[in-house]
Amino acid sequence: MLTLASDFGTPYPAAMRAAIRQHSDAEILDVAHDFPRQDVRTAAFWLREVLPYAPPAVHCAVVDPGVGTDRSAIALRVGEHALVAPDNGLVLPAARELLDPPAIAGSGLRGVDPVDSPDQPSDESGDPGAASTPTEIEAFEILVDDPASSTFHGRDVFAPAAALIHERGVSEMDACPFLEPRTEYVDLRFPDPVIERDDDPDDLQIQGQILVVDGFGNAITNVPGDVLAERDRVEVDGTSWPVVDQYAAVESGTGLLTVGSHGNVEFAVNRGRGDGVFGVEAGDSISLR
Amino acid sequence: MLTLASDFGTPYPAAMRAAIRQHSDAEILDVAHDFPRQDVRTAAFWLREVLPYAPPAVHCAVVDPGVGTDRSAIALRVGEHALVAPDNGLVLPAARELLDPPAIAGSGLRGVDPVDSPDQPSDESGDPGAASTPTEIEAFEILVDDPASSTFHGRDVFAPAAALIHERGVSEMDACPFLEPRTEYVDLRFPDPVIERDDDPDDLQIQGQILVVDGFGNAITNVPGDVLAERDRVEVDGTSWPVVDQYAAVESGTGLLTVGSHGNVEFAVNRGRGDGVFGVEAGDSISLR
Amino acid sequence: MLTLASDFGTPYPAAMRAAIRQHSDAEILDVAHDFPRQDVRTAAFWLREVLPYAPPAVHCAVVDPGVGTDRSAIALRVGEHALVAPDNGLVLPAARELLDPPAIAGSGLRGVDPVDSPDQPSDESGDPGAASTPTEIEAFEILVDDPASSTFHGRDVFAPAAALIHERGVSEMDACPFLEPRTEYVDLRFPDPVIERDDDPDDLQIQGQILVVDGFGNAITNVPGDVLAERDRVEVDGTSWPVVDQYAAVESGTGLLTVGSHGNVEFAVNRGRGDGVFGVEAGDSISLR
Repeated sequence: MLTLASDFGTPYPAAMRAAIRQHSDAEILDVAHDFPRQDVRTAAFWLREVLPYAPPAVHCAVVDPGVGTDRSAIALRVGEHALVAPDNGLVLPAARELLDPPAIAGSGLRGVDPVDSPDQPSDESGDPGAASTPTEIEAFEILVDDPASSTFHGRDVFAPAAALIHERGVSEMDACPFLEPRTEYVDLRFPDPVIERDDDPDDLQIQGQILVVDGFGNAITNVPGDVLAERDRVEVDGTSWPVVDQYAAVESGTGLLTVGSHGNVEFAVNRGRGDGVFGVEAGDSISLR
Repeated sequence: MLTLASDFGTPYPAAMRAAIRQHSDAEILDVAHDFPRQDVRTAAFWLREVLPYAPPAVHCAVVDPGVGTDRSAIALRVGEHALVAPDNGLVLPAARELLDPPAIAGSGLRGVDPVDSPDQPSDESGDPGAASTPTEIEAFEILVDDPASSTFHGRDVFAPAAALIHERGVSEMDACPFLEPRTEYVDLRFPDPVIERDDDPDDLQIQGQILVVDGFGNAITNVPGDVLAERDRVEVDGTSWPVVDQYAAVESGTGLLTVGSHGNVEFAVNRGRGDGVFGVEAGDSISLR
Repeated sequence: MLTLASDFGTPYPAAMRAAIRQHSDAEILDVAHDFPRQDVRTAAFWLREVLPYAPPAVHCAVVDPGVGTDRSAIALRVGEHALVAPDNGLVLPAARELLDPPAIAGSGLRGVDPVDSPDQPSDESGDPGAASTPTEIEAFEILVDDPASSTFHGRDVFAPAAALIHERGVSEMDACPFLEPRTEYVDLRFPDPVIERDDDPDDLQIQGQILVVDGFGNAITNVPGDVLAERDRVEVDGTSWPVVDQYAAVESGTGLLTVGSHGNVEFAVNRGRGDGVFGVEAGDSISLR
């Protein structure tokens, strides 16, 4: 399977899909093509949220403000996954998440044992699951004979490279003529929140950050959702807001704090935009209490 | 085949697709992921318009204002189709339509006999077509061990349940460990119009409703299109509008009545928005004459 | 493979995909469904940019302001490709491009020989590549028994016709019961620019046109990109603008000329809309010097 993500809007990604089909019949799963344009950080956040839920795949992601410069194109290998992208940190958060992947979705359904899932990678050694826990990120540079000959690297470099890596096999990347091992790559890390505990164990002070705002206006922080457990209200920058499990628990237009699908604290509004009501945008520092 | 529909925008549905791939290789056909947020009624309308045109499939649809409450998750079986959704009525109009499905698209092409289509369900009894006419809607509850452990039921409950039902087979739903037969579910019905005939058979009085407004601003009513046959103009709430077969029959910006792809009367504007010119929105009562 | 393109927005294209699945299991590659509504010219431009990058396929494209009139439905054959569309010129630029297709994407990757690609059409005569160079556009009319019985020809005519042509084989179109050879069809051509050279070979005067504006506001001209080679600045309608390889080479909000992925000169703005800053829209004449 190949996954495809970009900030290209439409219809440019169709040319990437067409280019892939010249080299591979592998299924193409679109992650999104409407990432905010040239916003590597937001796209990196979403790739981290989505890619680890996929079975082993070659992931092709292009948000590339440096196209036309001498930035490299890279391919990372994390166990049975490969990630193909410009060398600007775009896929690093996702790659690290693949080192410690989430539980397979659906394991909460009664009677479902994820080990029985037909698509799970099997381990020939008979040790179930061992094969699926990679321990390192291996990096390769993608060699392009004349990068300047194309202005659409998504179609002419990244998509074909991902398709050819898929066809040759992720385990065979070392032998691929257009891949060269390298040890360095641009990294991108989301900041950890600073959590201070007072004498009173219930009185937490948290310095966090808005990581991204999603298309609905939900402002997603870097603060783990478990700090909201057992709390009814939390102060954000000095203003108190209700903590709820569902938007509908507050009146229409009212701000709220909840835990999003990403597991982090999210500022939202029932039938409205959280970024507007809370007056925040991506990158803002926030203080919770 | 699996179909997938939601109000999740982007990129959340990609996590649903990835989750499906952990359990099934079945093809995924996206219906739409930009349904108006938390608007069960509009999504139910569109699901009814689209799903009955598909061959037998497991349909997964999530528009779920009640996530986080104790609303159930359900799976319906209608012949060879299954529908997986929150128990809020979302898939009931589509389920009922599957009891009386439309003709297979393309049967108007010269020389094409839909019975010859390779994907048609065959009936071993030799009675063509009999297998494809289900007579009842069977309901199951989807059992989740700890629903509150996830805030993203689309990824963690509905998508995996649909994938696993597909893998085990729709005919085997009775034996599925996470499905339990039940007789009740939340229903949702669109109102029928009230059509009064005067002494003059040509003088119809119709009390109808705007069911939904589509992305182009076309206001779709619950009034069957055949009432427009042989008519040049129709009064809507006292104002007369032209009846046309194609938008271009009136000047740019002019309102018109036509029959949409759904077979109902639609208020539209050539190169404009019908909801604006007609001053209507979803749920409004309208009177035609 | 089938490709699918329209101006239907959402969720109408899902009904087309469902209809295809009644007749064919072929992969469906969506080109775009958000072409500007009823804008045949813009859609024709994008189809020309995308379709030639695909391996042999049946391409179904519907932008159809004449639906409801007596316009024909056509199917074109260009070598191993077929194009199904309303007879309004929509697929003619793409069809002509298939007579002279671009290099296979990815041939710039080191060590990659496109002839080795698994999906390349093979030529039984042993003459590699010969099969992939069609020399003519063959036209067929799609025969529909009662066109007026449907208002959604995308679902009821074009999608099923494309699916059935795929199943029967593009080489068997002559024997297809709903296809009839014809010699005439509506054509659509984009104008060529007029390039005048002065005594000074570096002083070019070019009369061109804005062909389309893409979703980011980039105004794409009909002027081939090579006229920008070795130039730092170019005058557009008397105003001088920088020529750059990448948006980031100018300040945020500043206009620029560059060569787009389509190979033509494009008016753009770093982190802004080129159509606004340059004051142009599709169809405008422009003068470059």
